[in-house]
Amino acid sequence: MGMNRYRFSRRAEVLGKSVYDHASGVIMLSVGSAYPPILPDLSREAASSAQGYLAEVMQYGPLMGLPELRETIAAYVSEDSVECNAENVLITNGAKHATDLACRVFTEAGDKIIVTAPTYMTTLQCLRSHNLDIVAIPQDDDGLRTDLLEQRLETMRANAETLPKLLFDVPDFHNPTGITMSLERRKHLLRLSEQFGFVILEDDPYRRIRFEGEAIAPIKSMDQNGMVVAIGTVSKILAPGLRIGWAIGAPEIVRRMALQKSDGGSCPFTQRLVIEAIRSNKLHEHIEIVTKTMRTHRDAMIDALAEFLPDAKVRRPQGGYFLWAELPKGVSGDALAAEAVSHGVEIGSGRLCFPVEDPGNFLRFSYSYVDPETIREGIRRLGDAYRKIAG
Amino acid sequence: MGMNRYRFSRRAEVLGKSVYDHASGVIMLSVGSAYPPILPDLSREAASSAQGYLAEVMQYGPLMGLPELRETIAAYVSEDSVECNAENVLITNGAKHATDLACRVFTEAGDKIIVTAPTYMTTLQCLRSHNLDIVAIPQDDDGLRTDLLEQRLETMRANAETLPKLLFDVPDFHNPTGITMSLERRKHLLRLSEQFGFVILEDDPYRRIRFEGEAIAPIKSMDQNGMVVAIGTVSKILAPGLRIGWAIGAPEIVRRMALQKSDGGSCPFTQRLVIEAIRSNKLHEHIEIVTKTMRTHRDAMIDALAEFLPDAKVRRPQGGYFLWAELPKGVSGDALAAEAVSHGVEIGSGRLCFPVEDPGNFLRFSYSYVDPETIREGIRRLGDAYRKIAG
Repeated sequence: MGMNRYRFSRRAEVLGKSVYDHASGVIMLSVGSAYPPILPDLSREAASSAQGYLAEVMQYGPLMGLPELRETIAAYVSEDSVECNAENVLITNGAKHATDLACRVFTEAGDKIIVTAPTYMTTLQCLRSHNLDIVAIPQDDDGLRTDLLEQRLETMRANAETLPKLLFDVPDFHNPTGITMSLERRKHLLRLSEQFGFVILEDDPYRRIRFEGEAIAPIKSMDQNGMVVAIGTVSKILAPGLRIGWAIGAPEIVRRMALQKSDGGSCPFTQRLVIEAIRSNKLHEHIEIVTKTMRTHRDAMIDALAEFLPDAKVRRPQGGYFLWAELPKGVSGDALAAEAVSHGVEIGSGRLCFPVEDPGNFLRFSYSYVDPETIREGIRRLGDAYRKIAG
Repeated sequence: MGMNRYRFSRRAEVLGKSVYDHASGVIMLSVGSAYPPILPDLSREAASSAQGYLAEVMQYGPLMGLPELRETIAAYVSEDSVECNAENVLITNGAKHATDLACRVFTEAGDKIIVTAPTYMTTLQCLRSHNLDIVAIPQDDDGLRTDLLEQRLETMRANAETLPKLLFDVPDFHNPTGITMSLERRKHLLRLSEQFGFVILEDDPYRRIRFEGEAIAPIKSMDQNGMVVAIGTVSKILAPGLRIGWAIGAPEIVRRMALQKSDGGSCPFTQRLVIEAIRSNKLHEHIEIVTKTMRTHRDAMIDALAEFLPDAKVRRPQGGYFLWAELPKGVSGDALAAEAVSHGVEIGSGRLCFPVEDPGNFLRFSYSYVDPETIREGIRRLGDAYRKIAG
């Protein structure tokens, strides 16, 4: 049999078959992984859970998640003024899983979903796998341009087009731009969701990692009509390896999401570890450690960019893991990312984050994974690469 | 806003929003959960992994799974003459997850998939969520009637219909019937898959739980042309709570499946626990314990059915977790299952396992979850319920 032995689906062709391997032996300024030196040692919790909760952690867990974790998460988000009960909380295998389940529950192939341009690249892959029609709305320093969104929606309505079913955004320390959406924009967005009938997926992995400035109320905290599904995860605040996230929304939404799960319920063992880490205050202590560490990483990267890549326009994020840079017009992010690898540093081309048209001259950085000195060395190498291709 | 505030997808309407709650305070003869008294204590492995492999288990893992686990699983299945390498192995969050990923990679809504009638009810839910056209083929004591399948496929071809892309079956100790497919049928099925171009999903969670008789070679072990994706899990042989399964197939298939994952890679912590449990021989020891225990459970259920429900025709499974019974014509499995709950025992109506037409008079039992004495008491109660509705 030849090369066409298999009849793959459209979504399989869209996502392809190249499982990404990072370049080896290079400085990684491209991945939002946890900083290894501060990963939490949960060996005590692991041992006591495996023994003390044996019948819970080794057995199938409930499809919605452990009741105790659902209550614990409801209490956790109430610290951000999100008022909800356990019945609103679905436990997932990380935040991406929640986004995927929401797409399953709301969309058919061809349906519209609104995102910022640029947006989180892995979400784009997910949306593409659902063959969705992506409506891209620009951002400025206050976040998604809700005025432009409103115009766009009104035009759609005037033309009797099908309106979008979903909107995806990361309002706090946006991935990849680091922008935090203003309170006014959040309120406007919520009004638009009610007016035009789309559900907001408020993906909020970085909210607690704030270096400076005042926190802004989550959209979910203002949601009176069940238009928002708030998505969270412990990946950025405790440990990605636990694969525990959540979705918070109207019971009729989150229950439907649960029924679309193919995991037979999320892992009860790592759910129990999260309960124990929250109870013992380890999570909150860890958030402080992560915040302090990420601040020094951000500062190191901002300083190094000013020194070694002064041509780039950089937006200083007030929190989170990511930084976004604009190169002079005509300098290709793709070309620079490729050249950078041969100089021993991996960064992301902005292209991966643009849903439709790529302006071509953007870069995405993460400062989470390597130490400040290595960040500096990586940006120095990037500066060399830049001079080679731009000079 | 009214009840129609949300515009759900077709698949969301198909699966609904009722997260199933088991009746409380009743004897559960309906769930394939692990027998609690023999769940493994992995506290030592958990503590040493959380400490000794901290940077691995708390960080994001590779999308395909930990390389060491992929090698370990390749070695594990080689004990069943399945020859493969790590590159053929994708780690998933249990077996259902693998089935779902295969559907994502191969099918569009409306595509055909072949299953036995009856088949595993949770797989049916998954196939329905993909809006697939389910082709149901009867079974006999030798498993799927490949002769009938061949006729059906030839008719489809003669009528220029689109041929099925996938076949799903559980050849060893079939869920729910307990049937094991004969070697001859396995070979015939493999020939048909090559001739008609469908991929076989060989779901094999129970293979190692054999009480008596000789093992029959997995279809995957005879697969020369990459037509089979073998699906496995530790749920039935070690612990469901770990949520670790796998798919073994051609690299171009399993890589595509990996790219459809929405979990950001399966949990590295529980993957590491599986590696440690296999290395220390705990898995193989546990398989012996499970097999011995499930044999006594099966015997207790068979004996109790003969005593309290002699009207039922029961097939004696040579392994696995499930037992299937035929009631006299005209006695409704649905009615008996409902009546049984009010007598304090939960069993499954066969209807849940039939993809298309339900003959109406079948029951599905699992003997895995409760002890032999409780099994006997449950079947005694079932006998009372039966006499009430049939007498």
